[in-house]
Amino acid sequence: MPTDVRPYNRDVIIRAFEDEDWPQVWPIIREVVRAKDTFTYDPEMTEEQARADWIAPAGGLGLTVVAEDEGKILGTAEMDRNRPGPGAHVSTASFMVAADARGRGVGRALVGYALDWGRKRGYAGMQFNAVAASNVHAVHLYESLGFRIVGTVPGAFEHPTLGRVGLHVMYHDFAAD
Amino acid sequence: MPTDVRPYNRDVIIRAFEDEDWPQVWPIIREVVRAKDTFTYDPEMTEEQARADWIAPAGGLGLTVVAEDEGKILGTAEMDRNRPGPGAHVSTASFMVAADARGRGVGRALVGYALDWGRKRGYAGMQFNAVAASNVHAVHLYESLGFRIVGTVPGAFEHPTLGRVGLHVMYHDFAAD
Repeated sequence: MPTDVRPYNRDVIIRAFEDEDWPQVWPIIREVVRAKDTFTYDPEMTEEQARADWIAPAGGLGLTVVAEDEGKILGTAEMDRNRPGPGAHVSTASFMVAADARGRGVGRALVGYALDWGRKRGYAGMQFNAVAASNVHAVHLYESLGFRIVGTVPGAFEHPTLGRVGLHVMYHDFAAD
Repeated sequence: MPTDVRPYNRDVIIRAFEDEDWPQVWPIIREVVRAKDTFTYDPEMTEEQARADWIAPAGGLGLTVVAEDEGKILGTAEMDRNRPGPGAHVSTASFMVAADARGRGVGRALVGYALDWGRKRGYAGMQFNAVAASNVHAVHLYESLGFRIVGTVPGAFEHPTLGRVGLHVMYHDFAAD
């Protein structure tokens, strides 16, 4: 391992988002959505829209966290109930990691945090509604943490270089842990 | 066929929702969501929330229609893009039929209308994100109109009498027509 690559899965701190984090969180969201290769978000979303979408309101069911290392924010996750009413017992979450912090366990730490959050809140499981099949690294990470592909909507994700690829629905049943 | 049951699939008119329809549409939505047996909506949703959720804004991508027979509204459908950004080429739709108008082809007429809408708008297909597996009538109707079950999230729908049942993701690929 190169000396400048730290094993963030040991050292990263995951904590609740605070307002003063936004100037570091927005560039991560902007980079991810403008790349158009992982999220089904509007790639031209404004900073205001991004904040409304990603930052869970205080006191609500959702939670937004950041992965921090000595003041630098490396990634972020947003957790929430997946659906209201008769779907309210299933949680969901989304994850973004800064391009220059990938491959060092930040995503794994965030997903692990989200799973703990979901279990502690009493959810029956966690569903990911739209995972681009081309995002092989994420799919493998999720599978290694107990998610399975429930189904794949064919061609539902327009990848900028690969063309239309599938969108996986993935699920982690907490009762199976 | 009993004489008081009209074949609505022949006679029903599907047309764009107009403001003056709301007093007939809201009771249908209220009845459906409070039954808690088909939609993952908040069963206690207010009239204001229902209107914001169901009625597509004029001039946007979405469309809300009603099924009408001689001034009586029997059902309603809401069509839209399923996801923004790299998912923007797939449409979605939702359907509600008044309890006293079921089993007479109103739902079939609404789904057929939605499929035509999606094709004409140039979408690649139509996805249903959360179809309760216990809603066998709807699942069969969708399958008969070209949808297939892509996957089922186990136990993701809390049915009021059956307990937790699966939630199907269904997809109709317009290229396969």
